[in-house]
Amino acid sequence: MVSGPTRDAVIQIVDYVSKAIELISDSEKDSMIDLLLNARKEGRRIFVVGAGRSGLVAKAFAMRLTHMGFDVYVIGETITPPMRRDDILLAVSGSGRTKTVVAVAETARSIGARVVAITTYPDSPLGRVSDLVVRIPGRTKLAVEEDYIVRQVRGLHEPLAPLGTLFEVTTMIFLDGIVVELMHKLGITEEEMKEKHANIE
Amino acid sequence: MVSGPTRDAVIQIVDYVSKAIELISDSEKDSMIDLLLNARKEGRRIFVVGAGRSGLVAKAFAMRLTHMGFDVYVIGETITPPMRRDDILLAVSGSGRTKTVVAVAETARSIGARVVAITTYPDSPLGRVSDLVVRIPGRTKLAVEEDYIVRQVRGLHEPLAPLGTLFEVTTMIFLDGIVVELMHKLGITEEEMKEKHANIE
Amino acid sequence: MVSGPTRDAVIQIVDYVSKAIELISDSEKDSMIDLLLNARKEGRRIFVVGAGRSGLVAKAFAMRLTHMGFDVYVIGETITPPMRRDDILLAVSGSGRTKTVVAVAETARSIGARVVAITTYPDSPLGRVSDLVVRIPGRTKLAVEEDYIVRQVRGLHEPLAPLGTLFEVTTMIFLDGIVVELMHKLGITEEEMKEKHANIE
Amino acid sequence: MVSGPTRDAVIQIVDYVSKAIELISDSEKDSMIDLLLNARKEGRRIFVVGAGRSGLVAKAFAMRLTHMGFDVYVIGETITPPMRRDDILLAVSGSGRTKTVVAVAETARSIGARVVAITTYPDSPLGRVSDLVVRIPGRTKLAVEEDYIVRQVRGLHEPLAPLGTLFEVTTMIFLDGIVVELMHKLGITEEEMKEKHANIE
Repeated sequence: MVSGPTRDAVIQIVDYVSKAIELISDSEKDSMIDLLLNARKEGRRIFVVGAGRSGLVAKAFAMRLTHMGFDVYVIGETITPPMRRDDILLAVSGSGRTKTVVAVAETARSIGARVVAITTYPDSPLGRVSDLVVRIPGRTKLAVEEDYIVRQVRGLHEPLAPLGTLFEVTTMIFLDGIVVELMHKLGITEEEMKEKHANIE
Repeated sequence: MVSGPTRDAVIQIVDYVSKAIELISDSEKDSMIDLLLNARKEGRRIFVVGAGRSGLVAKAFAMRLTHMGFDVYVIGETITPPMRRDDILLAVSGSGRTKTVVAVAETARSIGARVVAITTYPDSPLGRVSDLVVRIPGRTKLAVEEDYIVRQVRGLHEPLAPLGTLFEVTTMIFLDGIVVELMHKLGITEEEMKEKHANIE
Repeated sequence: MVSGPTRDAVIQIVDYVSKAIELISDSEKDSMIDLLLNARKEGRRIFVVGAGRSGLVAKAFAMRLTHMGFDVYVIGETITPPMRRDDILLAVSGSGRTKTVVAVAETARSIGARVVAITTYPDSPLGRVSDLVVRIPGRTKLAVEEDYIVRQVRGLHEPLAPLGTLFEVTTMIFLDGIVVELMHKLGITEEEMKEKHANIE
Repeated sequence: MVSGPTRDAVIQIVDYVSKAIELISDSEKDSMIDLLLNARKEGRRIFVVGAGRSGLVAKAFAMRLTHMGFDVYVIGETITPPMRRDDILLAVSGSGRTKTVVAVAETARSIGARVVAITTYPDSPLGRVSDLVVRIPGRTKLAVEEDYIVRQVRGLHEPLAPLGTLFEVTTMIFLDGIVVELMHKLGITEEEMKEKHANIE
């Protein structure tokens, strides 16, 4: 059984995600799923973008979309095709202010693509350029007080999840939930996903 | 409040991580932290490797190590230097059978580096070539029964966390816990980490 | 007009490529083009792999194949699908000994894919596991003597193209030649390629 | 001996690079080398950025800088640290208009870094935000006429080097020339570079 600050942090993160899920809007989630399903039905492409750890979370979601047979690409990778009108850009940025992510979203918008932002700040530059914002609660809202108590008790001085950790982990798990809902709606089995999983890596 | 299979899946994943943390060995965690701290003290390098979503989780951890001032590199990226005797390779693979990851671990071992495996299977090819295995519980152990009950109730046919999801998310959160313990042991503040965070991305 | 060692090196590299092209086998080139065209006709996929600068050259070729409408993927990128029987793996390695590249080629072969090696050494581990080897002349064959003379005259001590430079540049230009031949055979215009070029980057 | 359009294209590319090198400014080259050498002497970092094939060329140069012991990073990779005042950003873009590259250069400038642009267009958005422009001749200047003649003779309709090919190849070889001049000025041997080359890839 893991103990020490590692344990405190894991419990804090898990607790945060449990509460955060209660605060994510069901209609925002449903709108995102509808956009993805419509894109799939109409042969339109999904592009993902994000920087740093948010970019890794975006890629983790893109992999699962690939496993479900979506036509998905990562901005900046080798074989990424041009974006077209009505394609979808899924942009992940906690602050909504990451420069290159905002630049990509603006270009996507000018092409006529639909931009979905996953961010804590709907009123950020990314949020404002997006057609749909899925709001992921930020650390300040939920974690600070409890974080403080745990740290007092344990004699820790720094937060139990530094920088964007809570946003990144919450987004990763939320998107893994979206994957399950898409599987359900499309009738895709885990076995079928395994068949679309890279076999050389 | 998010509902539907997305909600079920998030709750299932969060629940899984809470239980998994009870099953991760404290002494394996401590050994891993000691290896990282010693490497840092003696100016040795840490390399990370992983494929697919496990590779993304490895990179997410590498970013935080960078923010704490560790000398860390990702196998396969542009500026990665040669590995030397006594450097550390952190290899992430749920199955412990990913071909290129095992090949990298074997080469690292032959160079005289210390290999730390994060895997569900200590007896896998990766586990056997490693100096230290940190065992992350696998889906079969914990999730299957409850998963089955939730799915019965909700009329879902497929698992609430397909393929390697539970391993990947558990590993990501566990490593984020390790980050907090390293901050604590090294007396590094969040503010100091922010100063080492990329400012162009 | 650039002068100094930069100039000497550029002239040496250019001169090397001019001679190397005379030594690349026309039938190996034709076989490679046939494999690519047949794959395209039959809806089979092309995967590329390479490490270090050879990997960058492989990606540069993959981009152009994308621009021509080939179904091409890079091993290790986010959305890479599984390889199937009769797909093609294009593996670039000057030495033919790069561990992960050889591991990928072996797996590809075991799946029943056709492996095309671009290497200086047909008798290397990569060469031996490949269905087709396109041999790119190595530095020792062509460059050493002239290199020596230029360096004597200019007072330079080190080669004018260190490490794998001559292999990498020759391969890049040779593959750019293959692109033109594919355009010609398929009747693809530059304008059509521009339309398939990423518009967000 | 390779024949057909592949041969024509290789000869055309090689011929282009030979002429282009005569048109690159020696003082721009010298200024770039001075900036790199000063950065090295004063412990400042070099960052590279580029999109698509230009980005691959930037990475190929970054690898060689690593082999020579420079402190170099690629924008967007996992372990890239923050940029500081007086660090150097080397930005590669033929058109000088690639959105994310310009955004990165602008941010670098605002941080107080020195921006070196490698581009065909000094008067582009990238060129205008740069401290130093190294101008690489563009296709229109040199290649069009001869290209036309070769294609007439050979019955080809499309250019022998589509899209940015001539810029990318010329830049790659020019930067490989810079590597040799840096080796010369720093007294670095090929053997020393081999020791800094990744040994796991």
